Amino acid sequence: LRCGFPEVVFAQGKAPDQILAITNRLAEHSRQVLVTRLDAEVYEQIRAELPADMVYHARARVAALNRDADRLKHPGVLVLTAGTADIPVAEEAALTAELMGHAVERVFDVGVSGLHRLLNRMEALRRARVIVVVAGMEGALASVVGGLVSAPVIAVPTSVGYGASFNGLAALLAMLNSCAKGVAVVNIDNGFGAGTLAAMINAQRFEEK
Amino acid sequence: LRCGFPEVVFAQGKAPDQILAITNRLAEHSRQVLVTRLDAEVYEQIRAELPADMVYHARARVAALNRDADRLKHPGVLVLTAGTADIPVAEEAALTAELMGHAVERVFDVGVSGLHRLLNRMEALRRARVIVVVAGMEGALASVVGGLVSAPVIAVPTSVGYGASFNGLAALLAMLNSCAKGVAVVNIDNGFGAGTLAAMINAQRFEEK
Amino acid sequence: LRCGFPEVVFAQGKAPDQILAITNRLAEHSRQVLVTRLDAEVYEQIRAELPADMVYHARARVAALNRDADRLKHPGVLVLTAGTADIPVAEEAALTAELMGHAVERVFDVGVSGLHRLLNRMEALRRARVIVVVAGMEGALASVVGGLVSAPVIAVPTSVGYGASFNGLAALLAMLNSCAKGVAVVNIDNGFGAGTLAAMINAQRFEEK
Amino acid sequence: LRCGFPEVVFAQGKAPDQILAITNRLAEHSRQVLVTRLDAEVYEQIRAELPADMVYHARARVAALNRDADRLKHPGVLVLTAGTADIPVAEEAALTAELMGHAVERVFDVGVSGLHRLLNRMEALRRARVIVVVAGMEGALASVVGGLVSAPVIAVPTSVGYGASFNGLAALLAMLNSCAKGVAVVNIDNGFGAGTLAAMINAQRFEEK
Amino acid sequence: LRCGFPEVVFAQGKAPDQILAITNRLAEHSRQVLVTRLDAEVYEQIRAELPADMVYHARARVAALNRDADRLKHPGVLVLTAGTADIPVAEEAALTAELMGHAVERVFDVGVSGLHRLLNRMEALRRARVIVVVAGMEGALASVVGGLVSAPVIAVPTSVGYGASFNGLAALLAMLNSCAKGVAVVNIDNGFGAGTLAAMINAQRFEEK
Amino acid sequence: LRCGFPEVVFAQGKAPDQILAITNRLAEHSRQVLVTRLDAEVYEQIRAELPADMVYHARARVAALNRDADRLKHPGVLVLTAGTADIPVAEEAALTAELMGHAVERVFDVGVSGLHRLLNRMEALRRARVIVVVAGMEGALASVVGGLVSAPVIAVPTSVGYGASFNGLAALLAMLNSCAKGVAVVNIDNGFGAGTLAAMINAQRFEEK
Amino acid sequence: LRCGFPEVVFAQGKAPDQILAITNRLAEHSRQVLVTRLDAEVYEQIRAELPADMVYHARARVAALNRDADRLKHPGVLVLTAGTADIPVAEEAALTAELMGHAVERVFDVGVSGLHRLLNRMEALRRARVIVVVAGMEGALASVVGGLVSAPVIAVPTSVGYGASFNGLAALLAMLNSCAKGVAVVNIDNGFGAGTLAAMINAQRFEEK
Amino acid sequence: LRCGFPEVVFAQGKAPDQILAITNRLAEHSRQVLVTRLDAEVYEQIRAELPADMVYHARARVAALNRDADRLKHPGVLVLTAGTADIPVAEEAALTAELMGHAVERVFDVGVSGLHRLLNRMEALRRARVIVVVAGMEGALASVVGGLVSAPVIAVPTSVGYGASFNGLAALLAMLNSCAKGVAVVNIDNGFGAGTLAAMINAQRFEEK
Ligand SMILES: Nc1ncnc2c1ncn2[C@@H]1O[C@H](COP(=O)(O)O)[C@@H](O)[C@H]1O
Ligand SMILES: Nc1ncnc2c1ncn2[C@@H]1O[C@H](COP(=O)(O)O)[C@@H](O)[C@H]1O
Ligand SMILES: Nc1ncnc2c1ncn2[C@@H]1O[C@H](COP(=O)(O)O)[C@@H](O)[C@H]1O
Ligand SMILES: Nc1ncnc2c1ncn2[C@@H]1O[C@H](COP(=O)(O)O)[C@@H](O)[C@H]1O
Ligand SMILES: [Mg+2]
Ligand SMILES: [Mg+2]
Ligand SMILES: [Mg+2]
Ligand SMILES: [Mg+2]
Ligand SMILES: [Mg+2]
Ligand SMILES: [Mg+2]
Ligand SMILES: [Mg+2]
Ligand SMILES: [Mg+2]
Repeated sequence: LRCGFPEVVFAQGKAPDQILAITNRLAEHSRQVLVTRLDAEVYEQIRAELPADMVYHARARVAALNRDADRLKHPGVLVLTAGTADIPVAEEAALTAELMGHAVERVFDVGVSGLHRLLNRMEALRRARVIVVVAGMEGALASVVGGLVSAPVIAVPTSVGYGASFNGLAALLAMLNSCAKGVAVVNIDNGFGAGTLAAMINAQRFEEK
Repeated sequence: LRCGFPEVVFAQGKAPDQILAITNRLAEHSRQVLVTRLDAEVYEQIRAELPADMVYHARARVAALNRDADRLKHPGVLVLTAGTADIPVAEEAALTAELMGHAVERVFDVGVSGLHRLLNRMEALRRARVIVVVAGMEGALASVVGGLVSAPVIAVPTSVGYGASFNGLAALLAMLNSCAKGVAVVNIDNGFGAGTLAAMINAQRFEEK
Repeated sequence: LRCGFPEVVFAQGKAPDQILAITNRLAEHSRQVLVTRLDAEVYEQIRAELPADMVYHARARVAALNRDADRLKHPGVLVLTAGTADIPVAEEAALTAELMGHAVERVFDVGVSGLHRLLNRMEALRRARVIVVVAGMEGALASVVGGLVSAPVIAVPTSVGYGASFNGLAALLAMLNSCAKGVAVVNIDNGFGAGTLAAMINAQRFEEK
Repeated sequence: LRCGFPEVVFAQGKAPDQILAITNRLAEHSRQVLVTRLDAEVYEQIRAELPADMVYHARARVAALNRDADRLKHPGVLVLTAGTADIPVAEEAALTAELMGHAVERVFDVGVSGLHRLLNRMEALRRARVIVVVAGMEGALASVVGGLVSAPVIAVPTSVGYGASFNGLAALLAMLNSCAKGVAVVNIDNGFGAGTLAAMINAQRFEEK
Repeated sequence: LRCGFPEVVFAQGKAPDQILAITNRLAEHSRQVLVTRLDAEVYEQIRAELPADMVYHARARVAALNRDADRLKHPGVLVLTAGTADIPVAEEAALTAELMGHAVERVFDVGVSGLHRLLNRMEALRRARVIVVVAGMEGALASVVGGLVSAPVIAVPTSVGYGASFNGLAALLAMLNSCAKGVAVVNIDNGFGAGTLAAMINAQRFEEK
Repeated sequence: LRCGFPEVVFAQGKAPDQILAITNRLAEHSRQVLVTRLDAEVYEQIRAELPADMVYHARARVAALNRDADRLKHPGVLVLTAGTADIPVAEEAALTAELMGHAVERVFDVGVSGLHRLLNRMEALRRARVIVVVAGMEGALASVVGGLVSAPVIAVPTSVGYGASFNGLAALLAMLNSCAKGVAVVNIDNGFGAGTLAAMINAQRFEEK
Repeated sequence: LRCGFPEVVFAQGKAPDQILAITNRLAEHSRQVLVTRLDAEVYEQIRAELPADMVYHARARVAALNRDADRLKHPGVLVLTAGTADIPVAEEAALTAELMGHAVERVFDVGVSGLHRLLNRMEALRRARVIVVVAGMEGALASVVGGLVSAPVIAVPTSVGYGASFNGLAALLAMLNSCAKGVAVVNIDNGFGAGTLAAMINAQRFEEK
Repeated sequence: LRCGFPEVVFAQGKAPDQILAITNRLAEHSRQVLVTRLDAEVYEQIRAELPADMVYHARARVAALNRDADRLKHPGVLVLTAGTADIPVAEEAALTAELMGHAVERVFDVGVSGLHRLLNRMEALRRARVIVVVAGMEGALASVVGGLVSAPVIAVPTSVGYGASFNGLAALLAMLNSCAKGVAVVNIDNGFGAGTLAAMINAQRFEEK
């Protein structure tokens, strides 16, 4: 495919030998392979038989193989989180975009209840050409960021929270109702989807018109 | 009652003659009477027979009688809205608190998608001792305000919005999940409840300890 | 603002004189003004006093003023609908993007229950650099389109349907769960939001890198 | 019964000895016995005492006894899945229909995000007289298949997915709202129900009119 | 198409002139045209210009044109309702199946709170080869019928009821959870969908094997 | 209390030593003590220290102490279940009513998908003066029974089922919408509540008027 | 029937002539006929042709014919409401029970936010043998009453309220979760159902044992 | 900060070493540190390395460090629970307010089904200047208390309950719909939030006006 999607394996719900078989088959012909939602224990079980150049990122629960890792990356993608508990989802997004050839800037723990932390990072916000906002609980960060910048914002609600967060529903609804311009939403905890879309958007500037 | 609650009539669902009868009966013995959710057409039907000193506030759909209107008011209550469509609910809150003896500062249309509008009003935010935040759609304003001040915040979700706002559910859930300290929530569109509670909190500073 | 957003008035819930006042005020200083969710009857009431060069689009319930209408438009935006009942929302999206300087291709009524209609339009799909997919009921078109192209897809669930569509909830959930890469979702019936985001994405190719 | 229903034991929530007792009692008098939702560990505990001719299908978590296994089977039933994670439910459906005397064709992993995989199997689709479509996440496959064929489609939403799939609710709603003709829906993950209904429909062509 | 689907117009949400234009265009080339969800007032507005041989069925809000009305019909379809308020949906189902060439038996008002009414009609139940069960409120009729017969049952939940029926949700969930074999469900109030599917199933016995 | 309520301990969520302490304290002064939702493992831990005359009912997860067990019991209470998986809840109801001095007739596994099983028990149904109906999945049994008898029916939805049963919600809604006269509903899985209410109703015939 | 049920017509959704026809047919052979959910305008249209001895109760939207109105009534039924807006539903319940031969005591507007109003009526509460509690908003009255008395309580949630009452859902859930003994629940706004059940329970004391 | 908020660590979802590192870092510079949602097992793992003067409260799952513990506390905060299962959440609230310098009175297990228990504590209720009401199941206590006092009430719904409590949703909705004046609500199980807000409100009387 022209736009350089990696091959992707969604490990959740698959048996270790299935994950191994699919990954190794894909690794034969692809320059980029991504395994998402891969728990550390499962990874430990199969790591010896995975391609030697595959790297495991524990926090994001992602294993990534990138045979073009030394290629120059496209700048422009920024990944934000409201809290620290949102970081695993944010890392999934960032690693996905990196595998697709983009340089990703990370700014974590800048939730709206401490606005100064966000406002201190206006440089990064203005520099970005596409922003992934990862937030659970009330999901307000997407609206605030959307109002501060004119770049597209991809909002990822997370299941971080309890009670009336209803496993991410509160953040999801908040983000869908954002009164800021230029905000769209992906599934709860879907860092991979946000990273892919951010990469697709950012890539366009680097294509011939 | 020691804390000076007005008598209140909830007009929604009551027939005009019922509203009239109850209001006039209460007006015989009370110094403050409030009629909420009173539509303009209904008001027009009964205004001639209401107490002459009752004032109708169309935007808030509230009729108020205050026989101590000239008494000094307690400062400290601030009412904010995210958008202009939230103003009727905010006015219901403000008028309620005013009837209970409090001076209310109003700052409207400072939603989070234009953060500068809010930040321009930091003076008012800092001055306030209790803040009512009225917002529909994603309801993010409550969290942002809660993070900026150390006064109690009473959040009022409104049914302003469409689609996945689900008539105020999105704002309600967002406000309940606020990651800021000191935020509590009342029912959707319940300006009256927020105004009452704000007045009760603000009154305490003026009582003997 | 550098990226050429129009001034926008959300007419729903505003009184005719309010709409008129805001619109005329904005029209004094802006080259693009958009009034959304403006019902035909309301428009008829105020049309005489609106700027003479404002155009009303009945199907989209949108009034648009564009003082740069003769400027060359950026190609790349495609708007699709599943059914004919989805067209008003699609038109809101298309008109918004057009006002922001983009040429919009429209392909309507290509829902998945008649796949050949969609497959007949592969040319348009491949040509597009960003695609807005507008669909109610089961919302399946977003996934199918997402699988056929490598351009970003902005999915707009609509409230078209009945019963278990729950006013657009079914389509919303389906789109959020899309197994295709590169799909993000905006609020139910939010053509304006999708059009804005599509324009923002498409604009990036035409900016200096 | 004339239409050859097997005896069925729903193992979920039953103790191993209960499953054993019921199954063995049924096996005394019936030519077909099906045990559904039988976990591998439970099966291992009781297998020595089950009828010797009972076969366990691990993926479908089904144990089946068929004393007419050599009888000619009725062609016409097709079972499709969108993904590989949907296969256990699909196998439950297929094994049920097989036990009821039908030959079942299986076409797995033909979800709509890769439409060509489905279109490559048009032969099988056209051949079928009743089709069971098993899909989680956005459940779009049912609509696409319903539009391609004129055979009845029985849609089985699965709990495959996460976040806003809400354990199969998204797929369920999508399938209920299918804009294609001839689609009906069974409970989430109810492969057994779909297989039974498919067999009942397919059987009718082979009865005397 | 081989299986004789009528052309169908879904009138809800369309303007009278749109309905007229589409219907008349279809009537030029088709032998069967069905207009569903056509309110009496709209019908009155356009009836003079509709094809002269089109018949309006007020209770079902359906206009039907059948140029093969004198053809022999296939027996086998039974349509049941729980209450009298369910009849409009049932008629939509019955008229659809009739237009597709099937003779439809109707048995109305046999809800489970008066079981004898249903048991008195066992003849009709046994005779049927496919049964459409239309019920609102608790939707229990589908399970009871499913247990009494071995024919496929297509369950149509209706929005009849109030309070915790949640516009048909209660009946929908009940039908999806039916413990009887051979029951599948269509959308709330979707008589058209049930009639189409019933006709497709019933038709199979009359095709060459 | 005049109507002979037992003392009751709700064991769920309490530590074993807490259960023990409360139960033993109550057993000092009461003639009837009931411990509900007491898991077998917890019971085993504390049984040695419980009153010697306390009896554990494993299926109902109930421990009961009845110092008037030899008293004559009031006839009139009937407890029905739709399936075998509903029996634990039914037993909780029955044991509660028994402890309150009532003779309870049990008729289990008479769900509506096999109507003859229920109709075979018409004697018991007619004899009863109050009926507890325990059912999960579609919960249809309450309506059918309500239509067959003129005694009050207390419906207990259970969490038995999967998928769109939503842990008992489907049965709950169905029972609340029962079109039969004389049906009221208690919480999902609340056998205790149903048993108490049945006993209270049945007791009234035996009190002096 | 032995227990003296009136014939009942549910007028909602029926045309005036249908209501008239059914009612008059029933009035020929029955001593009690009840028409529920009969709006005043519809009643005015048909009153001239209804039985002369039928009485219309506007607040309850009920028309009742009672040819045994002079018979002695059984004491024991009490109907409570939390607010004045709940009275129509309460009247439907009371009138139903009265038509079935019971004397009904009414105590209205004793909601829990003014507990003294309820406690002032302890006499009536203690006297009652079955209590219907009608409440909207938070529905707390059922629990409080259930704790004060040992008579059975039939709780009727009403749709009175706004916002997060979700048309009666809040009160319904609260009542289902009542921690008081002896509370069962009927559908939202179902005064008829509660009145019928109350009468059935109260009747039992007056039957021969 | 002027109003003396403690530093707070939300332990849920953090690894033991993360909790330890953050807590110890905060303890270097702060006079009050609170760790919430800290399970006993995790606490045991890290207790040796935590500040020596940190105290663990098992029931509340809270570790608290207070270097001003000997300072005089502000009277006025009352924490109530409906049941014993609500105590952990109540203790979280009480400990939070205590850490912020307030004396907290506790009155537990005074749910509305035994009203006398609450009425016996009227002294405490009247004395309080702000009341935290913690209740699960039907959540009725907030309304009853709100009606008895004129102090602000902060309602905390808990997840205590089962079935239709839907993990605290029933209590949450009930509290939001409270018909008593002066009640606001925080998230399900959010004792910390309620304690913080109570302290903020109570503190105001002790500040200079
Ligand atoms: N807008 C409002 N929203 C919620 N509650 C209200 C409102 N207005 C009045 N109330 C409450 O309703 C009570 C009066 O109700 P009623 O006796 O039906 O008129 C007052 O005591 C208030 O507690
Ligand atoms: N159809 C629409 N849907 C959602 N948001 C809109 C729509 N039209 C306008 N808006 C937003 O509403 C804002 C204007 O709102 P207002 O100030 O209330 O007129 C604009 O800045 C847009 O961001
Ligand atoms: N996987 C399944 N899903 C839904 N229903 C099932 C399933 N397996 C069996 N059943 C039904 O459950 C009945 C047996 O239930 P039981 O008597 O509890 O074993 C059968 O008659 C089937 O109708
Ligand atoms: N207000 C009501 N709420 C619920 N059910 C009712 C009501 N009024 C009458 N019914 C029931 O509806 C049945 C009559 O319905 P129908 O035959 O449609 O008039 C009666 O037998 C009652 O069981
Ligand atoms: Mg922006
Ligand atoms: Mg704050
Ligand atoms: Mg794609
Ligand atoms: Mg088809
Ligand atoms: Mg059957
Ligand atoms: Mg009955
Ligand atoms: Mg009681
Ligand atoms: Mg109060």
